[in-house]
Amino acid sequence: MPRIDFWFEFASTYSYVTAMRIARLAADAGVAVRWRPFLLGPIFKELGWNDSPFNIYPAKGRYMWRDFSRVCDEEGLPLRLPPVRFPQNGVKAARLALAGETSGWTADFTRAVFVANYAEQRDISDDETLRAILTEIDVDPDAAFEAANAAANKEALFAQVDEAKALGIFGAPTFTVGDELFWGNDRLEAALRWAKG
Amino acid sequence: MPRIDFWFEFASTYSYVTAMRIARLAADAGVAVRWRPFLLGPIFKELGWNDSPFNIYPAKGRYMWRDFSRVCDEEGLPLRLPPVRFPQNGVKAARLALAGETSGWTADFTRAVFVANYAEQRDISDDETLRAILTEIDVDPDAAFEAANAAANKEALFAQVDEAKALGIFGAPTFTVGDELFWGNDRLEAALRWAKG
Repeated sequence: MPRIDFWFEFASTYSYVTAMRIARLAADAGVAVRWRPFLLGPIFKELGWNDSPFNIYPAKGRYMWRDFSRVCDEEGLPLRLPPVRFPQNGVKAARLALAGETSGWTADFTRAVFVANYAEQRDISDDETLRAILTEIDVDPDAAFEAANAAANKEALFAQVDEAKALGIFGAPTFTVGDELFWGNDRLEAALRWAKG
Repeated sequence: MPRIDFWFEFASTYSYVTAMRIARLAADAGVAVRWRPFLLGPIFKELGWNDSPFNIYPAKGRYMWRDFSRVCDEEGLPLRLPPVRFPQNGVKAARLALAGETSGWTADFTRAVFVANYAEQRDISDDETLRAILTEIDVDPDAAFEAANAAANKEALFAQVDEAKALGIFGAPTFTVGDELFWGNDRLEAALRWAKG
């Protein structure tokens, strides 16, 4: 079965849209998805940005929020703006999402965190929010946090960021099929076609 | 008849793709198009960029050329890379395109200039290239250059850039329907739907 890797960052707005639709589209296309949480912060820092480019460049930011609203509307996705802050710190959530790969709850957890951020104005950097989300998806919060905070898992997340950099990833969501990159929620369909050859 | 404004910059890669497909899609949708040449240089300068962001950020640039090639492939558009330089200086072409509005040759001229830049590796800042293009589309080059270089036309191009800034435009192609902005070739369909209400 062909596969695409879905690279996402929990602070990223358009990653929310992709997270909510990729399972359906990939299933229809007969393509498997590997969910790859990573962090944009270290990548942006190398580009000279200490904040989201949507904050650094106000015209781009104003446009993004408007476009994001329209896209959510078209996809029928709930949206409540503004989030508690932008960008939210997604490090803890990314560690959890990565730790969930072994037991197979990464996708469910990821969707729930994006909904918490963009549809429910909850603070996704807060342990209590994350514990509540884990409980909602029937995952034991204590065990999940223990796995997430293990040194090997933290290192695995850094390795994931390094791999993203090596692939040339500079934004989220990004899809990879081998070395082939597709950037942006609106490239999901093209990435799926590419994976099918 | 509903209308969209198509804001383009002759140096912009994705503006080539839009220029080649917008007339067909707009006709199918029953939407009129106003072709609005403008310059990104002065807008980028205000963002602190003295070059294309695709040159300033190499990872973004590498990705763009690859994605641009794939998109041209999907659209069946000829492409020969690299162009004689990137970005090419499109000021003269923009003045000509604006001057062509009165006589109605802006769209034909614009398509021919984009083809010269991205499919024929010609220097679109060169008078001889532009004169040859005008001749190809049956426009008298002397008259066209005289109209393009008239003080009022040069001022009209600056006014067009100011209008773009006031609308919040920060890239090309951009589509506007009243105050509503759509950025990027892949937003053309959404802009046409919006125009139809």
